[in-house]
Amino acid sequence: MPELRKDPIISRWVIISTERGKRPHDFVVEPEVTKGGFCPFCPGNEHFTPPEIMAYREPGAAPNTGGWHLRVVSNKFPALVIEGELDKRGEGLYDLMNGIGAHEVIIESPDHAKTLSDISVAQFADVLYAYRDRIMDLEKDPRFRYILIFKNQGRAAGASLEHSHSQLIGLPIVPELVQEELMGSKSHYKMKERCVFCDIIRQELNQKTRVVMENELFLAICPFAPRSPFEIWILPKVHHSSYIDLPDKDFRHLGEIFSETLKRLDKALNRAPYNFILHTAPLREPDLEYFHWHFEIMPKLTLMAGFEWGSGFFINPTPPEDAARYLREIEL
Amino acid sequence: MPELRKDPIISRWVIISTERGKRPHDFVVEPEVTKGGFCPFCPGNEHFTPPEIMAYREPGAAPNTGGWHLRVVSNKFPALVIEGELDKRGEGLYDLMNGIGAHEVIIESPDHAKTLSDISVAQFADVLYAYRDRIMDLEKDPRFRYILIFKNQGRAAGASLEHSHSQLIGLPIVPELVQEELMGSKSHYKMKERCVFCDIIRQELNQKTRVVMENELFLAICPFAPRSPFEIWILPKVHHSSYIDLPDKDFRHLGEIFSETLKRLDKALNRAPYNFILHTAPLREPDLEYFHWHFEIMPKLTLMAGFEWGSGFFINPTPPEDAARYLREIEL
Repeated sequence: MPELRKDPIISRWVIISTERGKRPHDFVVEPEVTKGGFCPFCPGNEHFTPPEIMAYREPGAAPNTGGWHLRVVSNKFPALVIEGELDKRGEGLYDLMNGIGAHEVIIESPDHAKTLSDISVAQFADVLYAYRDRIMDLEKDPRFRYILIFKNQGRAAGASLEHSHSQLIGLPIVPELVQEELMGSKSHYKMKERCVFCDIIRQELNQKTRVVMENELFLAICPFAPRSPFEIWILPKVHHSSYIDLPDKDFRHLGEIFSETLKRLDKALNRAPYNFILHTAPLREPDLEYFHWHFEIMPKLTLMAGFEWGSGFFINPTPPEDAARYLREIEL
Repeated sequence: MPELRKDPIISRWVIISTERGKRPHDFVVEPEVTKGGFCPFCPGNEHFTPPEIMAYREPGAAPNTGGWHLRVVSNKFPALVIEGELDKRGEGLYDLMNGIGAHEVIIESPDHAKTLSDISVAQFADVLYAYRDRIMDLEKDPRFRYILIFKNQGRAAGASLEHSHSQLIGLPIVPELVQEELMGSKSHYKMKERCVFCDIIRQELNQKTRVVMENELFLAICPFAPRSPFEIWILPKVHHSSYIDLPDKDFRHLGEIFSETLKRLDKALNRAPYNFILHTAPLREPDLEYFHWHFEIMPKLTLMAGFEWGSGFFINPTPPEDAARYLREIEL
């Protein structure tokens, strides 16, 4: 019997096909062949990108030259532009404003052939640290209300360049899905005086069935009502609403769990394309008692078709309990 | 300068790239080659589908035999099952219920090679009439609160069988996106004592820039804040919240505008895959003053990537004013 399950944060329903539960090898994943050729993100080609915004590099080396192990540059084809005023206005019934925003690319490693699951834990921790660096810098710009960090891994997940990179879009509005999470978790807090994410963490650690892995500080789970097969969330066990409050010393732990989670996912799904996103509190918010930052990782295994477009809910052929078990049982 | 535009019904923001505005031939559409082979939806193969729920056929002909020009059958691999009780329950923090629902397939024509834009207007009107027939029948089942009609045209849009068909899913809950439209339009009505869709129709007929075509009773527009390039909505000019209230004599007019709209879309975009969905009032609602039924057609030209997954808003490279102009200028 299929199940209708409700996400406890934003009340989104999903249909879980518990009977014809798809196992990892039921998904046809077309392996991506590295095309190679000219790459603007490779060392030596620094002048083919817009100028560096930030880099982690050998001390003393000049910007926009080699010797870096992580680089952040503006997106050459930005969805939003950094210069200008918002100029909020109406057109009859409609509301619009100028598309002002930041659109940056985080080049995660100098090595063209390595994805996030291939780089070292230390390097992964640096990528996660760079996310915080950029959020903290952009927070100073009063035009921005939210910084969305995301990654598209693989062409089918939207990556237009092969060399592994994440992206950041700074926005003058808080995106709808983040607002829904804020409202949903606030309403839970009002009723129960507890953070809904902390409640989820407690129940998952108790039930164990949806836990992929954990370490001292972080937990990786397949959420109860996932949109996508093998969807995984990574959450800090200790309550914090903002990613930028993560202490320096904890990035190593986050790198560890994130790296191993992606390795398990890659092995289970034959390096399937995926997206991940960081949900953190809006900029300049004090620590919120009701919200809890987290990463959401979504492998690209199913199509968004008419039913999903029309209803806003999802048909997921793999119960998260099965997905978590497959992922736990992977031998690395 | 790109623009951030807000949908006036559900307040969803989209980013419109007004500068690098993509024209129809900028989208790479891989033509789908008809594979042929055995098809369970073709005449003569009626016994390969679950038994007929309904058909439009020659008088006197037996069910599940030939002589039909439209057939409705249960989906052989349903996302939800029709037999059973909902059994709503909790699991700690989480809510779930059994996946009870209807999942039907509307085979739109006996002709394997024809899509909706190839069949006659009379046949198209029959497809639209069949949607109403099925909603009215399923409305009698008190377990259902909503019937979602949708179509996936082309493999990339989620069609697993080539023979042109629509689908219907009957649900025990009102889907999230419909709820958002209901809430948004109700709040507009509270403020203004007017239906927001009627307001949109008035402004679009006045501005003309986003109108694709119109006839006496219906209007086809590219909406102000479209998620997808070349997104089109078809709305009745006269206010009605429920599709099933459309009088018999008006289906011909709806068939006309829908058919020509799809022909224009097919010609502009080289028969690109698309989804469409019908948004109508929930079952057993009296005529609502604030809601207005409509179809939403979304060509599959862009990928849903990390930014869209994480934010819930969309980057659209084609301003709807350009899309509407291209579509109007198509010579049929």
